[in-house]
Amino acid sequence: MYSEIKNGGVTSAKGYKAAGVACGIKDGIKRDFAMVVSEKTANAAGVFTRNVVKGHSLQLTLKNLRATGKADAVVVNSGCANACVGADGDEAALKVVEYAAKKLNTKPENIIINSTGVIGKVLDWKAAVHGVDLAFDALSVEGGTDAEAAIMTTDTVKKEYAVSFELNGKTINIGGMAKGSGMIHPNMGTMISVITTDAAVSSDILQRALRETADCTYNRVSVDGDTSVCDMTVIMANGLAGNDEISDWDSPERELFSEMLKVVCEYLARMLAKDGEGATKLMEVKVVNAENKEQAYTIACAIAKSPLVKTAMFGEDANWGRILTAAGYSGAEFNPDTVDVYIGDVMTCKNGCALDFDEDAALVVLKKNEVVITVDMKAGDAWDRMWSCDFSYDYVKINGSYRT
Amino acid sequence: MYSEIKNGGVTSAKGYKAAGVACGIKDGIKRDFAMVVSEKTANAAGVFTRNVVKGHSLQLTLKNLRATGKADAVVVNSGCANACVGADGDEAALKVVEYAAKKLNTKPENIIINSTGVIGKVLDWKAAVHGVDLAFDALSVEGGTDAEAAIMTTDTVKKEYAVSFELNGKTINIGGMAKGSGMIHPNMGTMISVITTDAAVSSDILQRALRETADCTYNRVSVDGDTSVCDMTVIMANGLAGNDEISDWDSPERELFSEMLKVVCEYLARMLAKDGEGATKLMEVKVVNAENKEQAYTIACAIAKSPLVKTAMFGEDANWGRILTAAGYSGAEFNPDTVDVYIGDVMTCKNGCALDFDEDAALVVLKKNEVVITVDMKAGDAWDRMWSCDFSYDYVKINGSYRT
Repeated sequence: MYSEIKNGGVTSAKGYKAAGVACGIKDGIKRDFAMVVSEKTANAAGVFTRNVVKGHSLQLTLKNLRATGKADAVVVNSGCANACVGADGDEAALKVVEYAAKKLNTKPENIIINSTGVIGKVLDWKAAVHGVDLAFDALSVEGGTDAEAAIMTTDTVKKEYAVSFELNGKTINIGGMAKGSGMIHPNMGTMISVITTDAAVSSDILQRALRETADCTYNRVSVDGDTSVCDMTVIMANGLAGNDEISDWDSPERELFSEMLKVVCEYLARMLAKDGEGATKLMEVKVVNAENKEQAYTIACAIAKSPLVKTAMFGEDANWGRILTAAGYSGAEFNPDTVDVYIGDVMTCKNGCALDFDEDAALVVLKKNEVVITVDMKAGDAWDRMWSCDFSYDYVKINGSYRT
Repeated sequence: MYSEIKNGGVTSAKGYKAAGVACGIKDGIKRDFAMVVSEKTANAAGVFTRNVVKGHSLQLTLKNLRATGKADAVVVNSGCANACVGADGDEAALKVVEYAAKKLNTKPENIIINSTGVIGKVLDWKAAVHGVDLAFDALSVEGGTDAEAAIMTTDTVKKEYAVSFELNGKTINIGGMAKGSGMIHPNMGTMISVITTDAAVSSDILQRALRETADCTYNRVSVDGDTSVCDMTVIMANGLAGNDEISDWDSPERELFSEMLKVVCEYLARMLAKDGEGATKLMEVKVVNAENKEQAYTIACAIAKSPLVKTAMFGEDANWGRILTAAGYSGAEFNPDTVDVYIGDVMTCKNGCALDFDEDAALVVLKKNEVVITVDMKAGDAWDRMWSCDFSYDYVKINGSYRT
């Protein structure tokens, strides 16, 4: 029904070029400035952090994107979050956007900007403007991977993915890149994702589809429960695939588009969890047969966030007691006497009671780099899940010394 | 107004003896069974975990204490939580209580029992009954410290404290012991505290005073955000001080008693936070000048729980951005543009904006073993606080290998 594009990413769809350059926001050697450009003005949408505190670059994007629903380009710097610095931060973001717009011969409102990195420093807009020049000269279809490199902070692997599929005889491509690591949690903690497609989709549909997709992909990732101040997922749809614009939510075309968007975002979301700071393994927490979706979500979230569950995963310890404990304090009401807990396919607890399970079999599961924890509530037919990762020495090491 | 009792603890009040023995629930060498006995049946009260899942020993205590409001003794074992094991767990707790009651010549309903340790194993009631015998023979005023040793799991220091004060010409003593470490969080995560007093206080007043005290002491401690399935604070008041029974909530006597109870519990609560698993320092988070108490609590709680703030404390990094970020995602609504953040007495952020503060002065604060973080909302006159600790390599080490 769809095919993966080999080495696909943010420039896999028709009409997109990208670049990632070192402009001196970091040390002048590491890439710190990314640009993704559509050759034709694209419809665009975004989902943003719900943190009460919002970075200045993000605030500008929020304002512009809501007003226009259009974009020609996305520019993102790493090394500085441009957050909590007052009017200077607003001004810096605006200067970069104005310069990029001039360079790309468009309106400032059509430039999506964001910044990630340390809070409390004003974006060096002169360096960023230099970045615009450098990136503009380097724009290419191959530049997607450099762009990804430029938005990474403590990420250890690049996160890119793209698929292609047929829609009414036209080939549609959707691809994207993401950066994550620490502070990832439902509602976009230090997480940036840029998705591009050549499908023609109206801005309204794009916004609704992205929101829905984010809710079941990026918003189901938790690394440490913290959410950041300036992070986002954005999508551009430039229509170069030549399909009739998708503008009816109830159409099969929209449904197919949403499904494919989910494939891309789920892939990237899993990569984010797996590459959580210091993570040695991906942890997927599924709560099934719950009374309702909210109960399933609340319990999955508490388990995925629990430092005790996460350290047990790191220690490869089948400590289902901590899993049940986290469910118990999640805030969800439930009857513990019907709950089964599985680690991989090993049932460790039945009806809320310990089982004399095969520890060796559980260890085989726990030694893998992806572990699925399933909590069967036996109370209904709702379900939800979270992706998370284990909690290691390296998490402490990375975060004990990030700023200085 | 009150004096600390030197080396005071759970047997400082008149008429209490205690013992802590090794009965074989652990390895036969480590103390694992504690008993605290009042020579006269005491009025008693308790505050218990709000986890949906509750240990079997705790369930029995909940039932008995609510019915009687009385107790002659508290027995607590470590090494086994007696949780999530079904009817066998209920039966084991009952057998121990029945035996202890016979030994102490009282009703089973007057024995408070609890268990802490690994979830999913039935309490070895034969070992515990042996523990009753051993402890009974060892009961003494000096035995308080042994009792404390017997309830410790991953605690590294003993937590005991007692004060004495005058009430209408009578000398009243209040003392107690506590165990904590990991999984401590508001609402009694793996936290056990036994308080004793020789004051005469009605059961109703005792319950209300303990609830109120727990809310501003033990329920303001967070180590890792997890809350456990079988933990509690209980208090016994045997009246041997000879005061007229405190039975009027609005009396000055009750107010003084509550105040003294808070002194004891706050001392123990701070020790719990400071001795959090792997902790190198106590972190006190104060949110002041908030719009209302709930806002202050919500924000303090998010900061105290944030793994990023806690690792920054471990790394002695004045990373106020993470503090403000945690406030922002706490769920509380507020205007970030009025918020100041202090690390110790160093203002690091004013009106939501970075300050060019003295990093050396901040480092002096951060190198101490107690760090106060203050968030000034400048929005009202409510305040709240949480005690927490930093997040270290040792936290991961301890919890990556606890069960096996």
